[in-house]
Amino acid sequence: MPGVPPSRFAYLGPAGTFTEAALLTLPAAQRGNRIPMRNVPEALEAVRGGDADAALVPIENSIEGSVAVTLDSLVSGEPLVITAEVVLPVEFVLAGVTGGEVATIASHPHALAQVRRFLRMKYPAVTTVETLSTAAAAEAVSNGKADACVCAPLAAEHNGLTVVESDIADNPGAQTRFALVSRPLPPAPPSGNDVTSLVVYIAHDEVGALLTVLSELSVRGVNLTRIESRPTGERLGRYAFYLDCTGHIADERVGEALTGLKRVCAQVQYLGSYPRDGGDGPIPPPRGLADRDFADAAAWLARLRTSGG
Amino acid sequence: MPGVPPSRFAYLGPAGTFTEAALLTLPAAQRGNRIPMRNVPEALEAVRGGDADAALVPIENSIEGSVAVTLDSLVSGEPLVITAEVVLPVEFVLAGVTGGEVATIASHPHALAQVRRFLRMKYPAVTTVETLSTAAAAEAVSNGKADACVCAPLAAEHNGLTVVESDIADNPGAQTRFALVSRPLPPAPPSGNDVTSLVVYIAHDEVGALLTVLSELSVRGVNLTRIESRPTGERLGRYAFYLDCTGHIADERVGEALTGLKRVCAQVQYLGSYPRDGGDGPIPPPRGLADRDFADAAAWLARLRTSGG
Amino acid sequence: MPGVPPSRFAYLGPAGTFTEAALLTLPAAQRGNRIPMRNVPEALEAVRGGDADAALVPIENSIEGSVAVTLDSLVSGEPLVITAEVVLPVEFVLAGVTGGEVATIASHPHALAQVRRFLRMKYPAVTTVETLSTAAAAEAVSNGKADACVCAPLAAEHNGLTVVESDIADNPGAQTRFALVSRPLPPAPPSGNDVTSLVVYIAHDEVGALLTVLSELSVRGVNLTRIESRPTGERLGRYAFYLDCTGHIADERVGEALTGLKRVCAQVQYLGSYPRDGGDGPIPPPRGLADRDFADAAAWLARLRTSGG
Amino acid sequence: MPGVPPSRFAYLGPAGTFTEAALLTLPAAQRGNRIPMRNVPEALEAVRGGDADAALVPIENSIEGSVAVTLDSLVSGEPLVITAEVVLPVEFVLAGVTGGEVATIASHPHALAQVRRFLRMKYPAVTTVETLSTAAAAEAVSNGKADACVCAPLAAEHNGLTVVESDIADNPGAQTRFALVSRPLPPAPPSGNDVTSLVVYIAHDEVGALLTVLSELSVRGVNLTRIESRPTGERLGRYAFYLDCTGHIADERVGEALTGLKRVCAQVQYLGSYPRDGGDGPIPPPRGLADRDFADAAAWLARLRTSGG
Repeated sequence: MPGVPPSRFAYLGPAGTFTEAALLTLPAAQRGNRIPMRNVPEALEAVRGGDADAALVPIENSIEGSVAVTLDSLVSGEPLVITAEVVLPVEFVLAGVTGGEVATIASHPHALAQVRRFLRMKYPAVTTVETLSTAAAAEAVSNGKADACVCAPLAAEHNGLTVVESDIADNPGAQTRFALVSRPLPPAPPSGNDVTSLVVYIAHDEVGALLTVLSELSVRGVNLTRIESRPTGERLGRYAFYLDCTGHIADERVGEALTGLKRVCAQVQYLGSYPRDGGDGPIPPPRGLADRDFADAAAWLARLRTSGG
Repeated sequence: MPGVPPSRFAYLGPAGTFTEAALLTLPAAQRGNRIPMRNVPEALEAVRGGDADAALVPIENSIEGSVAVTLDSLVSGEPLVITAEVVLPVEFVLAGVTGGEVATIASHPHALAQVRRFLRMKYPAVTTVETLSTAAAAEAVSNGKADACVCAPLAAEHNGLTVVESDIADNPGAQTRFALVSRPLPPAPPSGNDVTSLVVYIAHDEVGALLTVLSELSVRGVNLTRIESRPTGERLGRYAFYLDCTGHIADERVGEALTGLKRVCAQVQYLGSYPRDGGDGPIPPPRGLADRDFADAAAWLARLRTSGG
Repeated sequence: MPGVPPSRFAYLGPAGTFTEAALLTLPAAQRGNRIPMRNVPEALEAVRGGDADAALVPIENSIEGSVAVTLDSLVSGEPLVITAEVVLPVEFVLAGVTGGEVATIASHPHALAQVRRFLRMKYPAVTTVETLSTAAAAEAVSNGKADACVCAPLAAEHNGLTVVESDIADNPGAQTRFALVSRPLPPAPPSGNDVTSLVVYIAHDEVGALLTVLSELSVRGVNLTRIESRPTGERLGRYAFYLDCTGHIADERVGEALTGLKRVCAQVQYLGSYPRDGGDGPIPPPRGLADRDFADAAAWLARLRTSGG
Repeated sequence: MPGVPPSRFAYLGPAGTFTEAALLTLPAAQRGNRIPMRNVPEALEAVRGGDADAALVPIENSIEGSVAVTLDSLVSGEPLVITAEVVLPVEFVLAGVTGGEVATIASHPHALAQVRRFLRMKYPAVTTVETLSTAAAAEAVSNGKADACVCAPLAAEHNGLTVVESDIADNPGAQTRFALVSRPLPPAPPSGNDVTSLVVYIAHDEVGALLTVLSELSVRGVNLTRIESRPTGERLGRYAFYLDCTGHIADERVGEALTGLKRVCAQVQYLGSYPRDGGDGPIPPPRGLADRDFADAAAWLARLRTSGG
């Protein structure tokens, strides 16, 4: 597939969700086909089965998609890799029909939970109606089943609704993170500010096993920007850790850290190296950990091994 | 409240969800009032506001409740503590009306995702209908809006449905974990196999900050059974780590570890010490880390400080 | 003995050695009796047996005293503690009789080794004569058995010799460190820039045992300024580590670190807390590790333990 | 020099010292020339200058040689490497002339210190005479200057003395370790139970710098059998650590650890890889750290880097 950019994009639907909004920030997806799927596993299966070239799914702090479901679906089945990330602010609007009164407000339960303070202050007497997605809530308003909805701006637009109020989330700084997933591909060259995603499996009863894992990273100056443990259902007593690390698999320090993990962990799954969305451009590697430092040290070792000094 | 056991139990509703099934494993809840709430934040607010004595909410691997929502709701607002945990196997059944044909199957999208293989094999031609909860799916069958549903055994019972097939989850070992939450209470005495839940906040740009946190625990022989990082929306550049540690706040090793975290972290929130559900009885503390070892070492230090030898 | 300052000082003799020069920097020793001993074990036994109140012995980088002998003698037998340290630059002079020619130069072999470059440049044809100490070399010159000697300025003075050349050590920055040792005493109050000396014993075959020891220190912000491992003859397969740590046993962070070591090590011997010689005055404790931080964290823990929040 | 075994062996003299006894355990030295030197720096200079092919010098727990002097001499000047070690029990004998009475006993002060208990019990009234080496003590007896001496069995033999009593050291388990040093040579192939000696230099003011060094080793499963810190006179505020590590420079895990140290330390000096004396034959590498494990992990990484999965 290298050379042929993806043109068929599955995503967590329906149209108008935050995931579609995130997808539309990718130029290739603006031009390509966008295929809404009912849930994350189906979006990923579409890629595995060849019905889509890539899928955009929520992986952190999502409103409608369960992160747990995404992670579990990523790691079971045929291998997939993340080739890009999209980070979006959680931007809720209250949308309705112009001029109408607001007695009922529809939305996904998680969205309603995130605007509770707003609703209590501005619409204390309103009846809330739960829907399966924020996009479905907009559709419900459009169909006359509710007076207004809490949704993404895109869903209001899709359904011809008027935005009554913007930026209504109780916590204004919240963000959602999405991953663009495809079948295994050679990684794009490092951008200088990259993320490498991994899943490592360790035995449950090994005391300090997580410290062992983190030491393999920290010794090579590889930082974590995310960690999440999950018990693995398959074999009782084993843990999986989802890790987002700084750096790219082509960086020497990341490569050495990966081989270290490979040797000490029960299993390591590589989920891709990709540019950090919203990063401030290339970040210099830590002191002593640039590719050049690795090359210098390797030359020094080779000399000692052959001549002793 | 000590001495007066809780009698009003809020939980993530509606009736018939996995959360109610978990709640019914607690004797006090069997006898007390069980109050279904529409979402996790409302269940916790009921406790904060005094409308309930305790709330049971999903905290790990849940089907209908988002773990992220639970964690966020636990740590913002008035303090709450976890006083018990309930671990349940994820037990899906296919339930319907006796003798009926099955053309449509209803359930929550996450539940449908977890029985995909089963449906593909046994009901390849079925139409799925998404509902807001598995309990709502059972109700839909009972109201004639679907032929069958994927739900908890309890929901089938509540709605007078017949269980067509049991144990239909694709991954048979999956579990869900629930927390019983109340306003701050003196912790119950250690059971010998306890969990202490914490949230620690560390500065984003501190290299190796997570290793620092884990070292505070490992030096005192305190293991982790769960770790999850989450960016905090409130202040950019800060991370929160949700930690489940082995041991009880009354244990000397846990107490010293907590004070260590308190000193090095930007903030530490204590979320409670409680018995591990399904544990095999008391676990002896690691070598050198029993309360008696702490007392012996403290006596030795006191002697050196006063007499020098 | 508190209240009664030491007045009888044993030291590694004979008179005129670097150890006597170090002893004379202590005001109490200037006024008191100074008792030269033939070797370090005898100096320490004089203290153990009550024949001296304190002994000054070399503990690091010494010319005439073997550090290994000092360490071994300190830890075997009745307990002793270090109450002060003295750090002296290694100041060699070439001393002789005025006007004499220099065909033979006497000194201790280690002193001769440290002025080799000087001798080769200035006295390429000289014959060297080895003596049991630098003080003995000065006496040899005074007795006409050598033309000149390499010794401490004090030895030249004692023997009425003329200093021919000063600062003749090949490595001009070298220092020697001496310890003032007494029977166990309550430690003096912290000066704010103190050293605590320890010996810890760990099992040989425990992988990572040294990392365990260092973690107990680093978690409490206690730094090492010296570490030396020595096999213990007594029990095969066990290691002893001599550690000099920053801080005072009365500091909370040092006290907690000591109790941590006490719990995880096979044995811990406390060798004293004393002011660093030549320090630049009080050093503020690391962030979060002042006594006040420990008190705050302990109060926080006590509150959680009693009220849960 | 590979192919031409060393035939000229400098050692810390005079003849009859423990160092000569250690040298005679090496077959090549039994056949070759053995050249006694007055002190360790001269022995090493003889190798540097080409006057000897190798030098045997004490490096740990020595009676007559100062370990500090050996270490300092090894690392300053032209590079040298250790090619073998010899570990000898410290075997003191009391030797004299047959039939004579024993009123005076001669020896090196450190040797006298190590037989104090023996002398106090068996010869409470004896006068001790200090000499510059244990071999010089034997010579003194042979010359009639003392009645008996404490020395190595070899010195008694050299001087035609009778062994009055054997194994007289107070601590019967003590050992001395010697290093055979030569100009840089390609290391001999691994024996399976090897030591690699290093000196690493780190900045003084870097908190936790030693932990950083040890982590580079422990992450690669390289253990320490010896560690000694020494302040470096050359540049104030810098520390040198002398390390003896398990494994051979040709082992993958040791090689990677060395390159890690090279990158993070101010300076690394390689002092040689050589078989452990008295080891019990090959020791299997730790789990996941055999050369084969490194090769497997490298192949896995290469595959991910080129194909992404």
